Amino acid sequence: MEQKTMHLQKYMVAENIDLVYMDNPTAVAYFTNFESNPHERIVAYVVSQNDHFLFVPSLERAEAESQSNVSKVFTYTDDENPWAIIGENGHKIASNIQKVSVDEKTLTVERWFKLQQTFSSATDTTEWSDISNFIEQTRVIKEDDEIKKMSRAGELADEAIQIGMDFLEEGITELEVVAQIELEMKKRGVSEMSFSTLVLFGEHAANPHGNPGDRKLNQNEFVLFDLGVIYKGYASDATRTIAFGEVDEHKQKIYEIVLEANRTAQAAVKPGMRAAELDQIARKIITDAGYGEYFNHRLGHGIGKTAHEFPSINSTSDIILEPGMCFSIEPGIYIQGDVGIRIEDCVYVTETGCEPFTFLDKELTTIIK
Amino acid sequence: MEQKTMHLQKYMVAENIDLVYMDNPTAVAYFTNFESNPHERIVAYVVSQNDHFLFVPSLERAEAESQSNVSKVFTYTDDENPWAIIGENGHKIASNIQKVSVDEKTLTVERWFKLQQTFSSATDTTEWSDISNFIEQTRVIKEDDEIKKMSRAGELADEAIQIGMDFLEEGITELEVVAQIELEMKKRGVSEMSFSTLVLFGEHAANPHGNPGDRKLNQNEFVLFDLGVIYKGYASDATRTIAFGEVDEHKQKIYEIVLEANRTAQAAVKPGMRAAELDQIARKIITDAGYGEYFNHRLGHGIGKTAHEFPSINSTSDIILEPGMCFSIEPGIYIQGDVGIRIEDCVYVTETGCEPFTFLDKELTTIIK
Repeated sequence: MEQKTMHLQKYMVAENIDLVYMDNPTAVAYFTNFESNPHERIVAYVVSQNDHFLFVPSLERAEAESQSNVSKVFTYTDDENPWAIIGENGHKIASNIQKVSVDEKTLTVERWFKLQQTFSSATDTTEWSDISNFIEQTRVIKEDDEIKKMSRAGELADEAIQIGMDFLEEGITELEVVAQIELEMKKRGVSEMSFSTLVLFGEHAANPHGNPGDRKLNQNEFVLFDLGVIYKGYASDATRTIAFGEVDEHKQKIYEIVLEANRTAQAAVKPGMRAAELDQIARKIITDAGYGEYFNHRLGHGIGKTAHEFPSINSTSDIILEPGMCFSIEPGIYIQGDVGIRIEDCVYVTETGCEPFTFLDKELTTIIK
Repeated sequence: MEQKTMHLQKYMVAENIDLVYMDNPTAVAYFTNFESNPHERIVAYVVSQNDHFLFVPSLERAEAESQSNVSKVFTYTDDENPWAIIGENGHKIASNIQKVSVDEKTLTVERWFKLQQTFSSATDTTEWSDISNFIEQTRVIKEDDEIKKMSRAGELADEAIQIGMDFLEEGITELEVVAQIELEMKKRGVSEMSFSTLVLFGEHAANPHGNPGDRKLNQNEFVLFDLGVIYKGYASDATRTIAFGEVDEHKQKIYEIVLEANRTAQAAVKPGMRAAELDQIARKIITDAGYGEYFNHRLGHGIGKTAHEFPSINSTSDIILEPGMCFSIEPGIYIQGDVGIRIEDCVYVTETGCEPFTFLDKELTTIIK
């Protein structure tokens, strides 16, 4: 049994949980090493206090058996009732099922009802509980091998932004730059970006979630890159905003404010600190400079197997930072129709502070072409 | 009010549903035209019998207001409790909430509990029901404007496979071909593929869900392309398997069996037919040829706003085909360690049969280089 599953089983014993069911692909991959993208089909990991099995569509059997650390792999074809097979084998690995725990944050209501039909006792005394907090708390502290994979994912993100910067020229479109970045990443063996690559020009970057399109690059405007890759099941995420040509002093000033917020927050990270405090440290700098209303999102988000995961670093986040936690620090200022600037590195908390996963220069970079 | 929402409200009146809540991004986009990718944040569409609102993270406000057909857009910041805002405005658009309907197929258990806290009455007599079947039944019949978008998505898929074929050469890797296809698609303004592009060489294609990697192309083997794009919120999906050099007679024979299954099924589509019957028509050809065990997945899946959606075309699928339904026909034969062949077009059902969205030649194409 893998260490992560043993940790889960220890918790199950302490909480009298007889069976855990999870079917979120990244959670399943976290515990079993089996990465999947089952669309509407089911990939589930079912654990009892002393046994476990992986359940996958039959056409995933070969990959599940070769990739996962689970020796029991059960499958279903498109014509079979998956719940019957899950039920039969669930009852085999747990003889007396009184309490079942599921990941309420990702499980759908429909599947929850199916599970209840599958595992409720005749007298309907089965107790149901939520395992999502335990999974989050376990996943939030990254182990050394996870930090290593995330470091490599970070190196690739640095490289990707550099490729994008090198490729800029007047008249090129945002999507052409995205395409070039992703082409070069694939040549390096990266099969998946961690989210839709953002390359946004000028005022288009004022929408923090704008989509790259046919907008052409002009001289003397900002270019915002926000991207990341998946490397061996772990994500990176970084943002740089650079000047193509000369940007005016007002915009340079805004850049410096964002940079100060970014650097101050990164320098302030310490184990034992509340996440909300970190958000406030960055936010205060932007607010004091008069741009508080233009920093309209949280400071950051957790990162790990996905680019966005627990914990949220916002002004009400009570989580206490601990060594091994990984999250983004990404202050920004967005003025609609005018300018959008964000500077982001993801970091991992150490015993004394934090270390970033990405290292591209944060001083304002100007490209003259 | 848009027609799709009026249709939903008519159903709500008939079923005495006071409020519908949905937060699946493609369902929200279907009704409101607002395409989003909210990650762990909430984008929700809330409908009463005579009103409605869109609920989005505050940083999506500008896009939600410009893209959507909904005049009331409410937002929340990362520091606010979204359920309080949803609750307040839900009670404003529906004065007496006795029955709430949610999309159980996509709603998470956690959010369902939050909704129950938000909309249950003091005496807890609120009734909860599932709107997912209604949404599926509505979405499954595509209107003309949807067929048009899917046709354009299909054209682009044809073009993408052609680009991939043109780019093949001995020694190239699967991922390099994927990269080239996606680069060319982005140049054509395609910002998103409808799923991870598959380019698989030789025996690697024997895993129907294999991932492209560093495998290099040799002379005299098959190449499988399975891909699609998103065009204006609608997906395409097509598969071709072609020969790079000369493949042996045994493999050619298998190709012909798959092709016959594909063509026979496509020719057999008729309104009024059970989906299972269509699966059986294709499966019988492969089974009679002695390869039944190697066709280890269903014949097809619905397609629309996503590449995989309702209905499933498998041997137990009771759905009756109707004009406007869109799905894939994708028989395949997979022999582990040896060969994988699949031929797929998506089609839409007409009054008399069906029409495909993709048109690349299905006769065995051989590329000699």
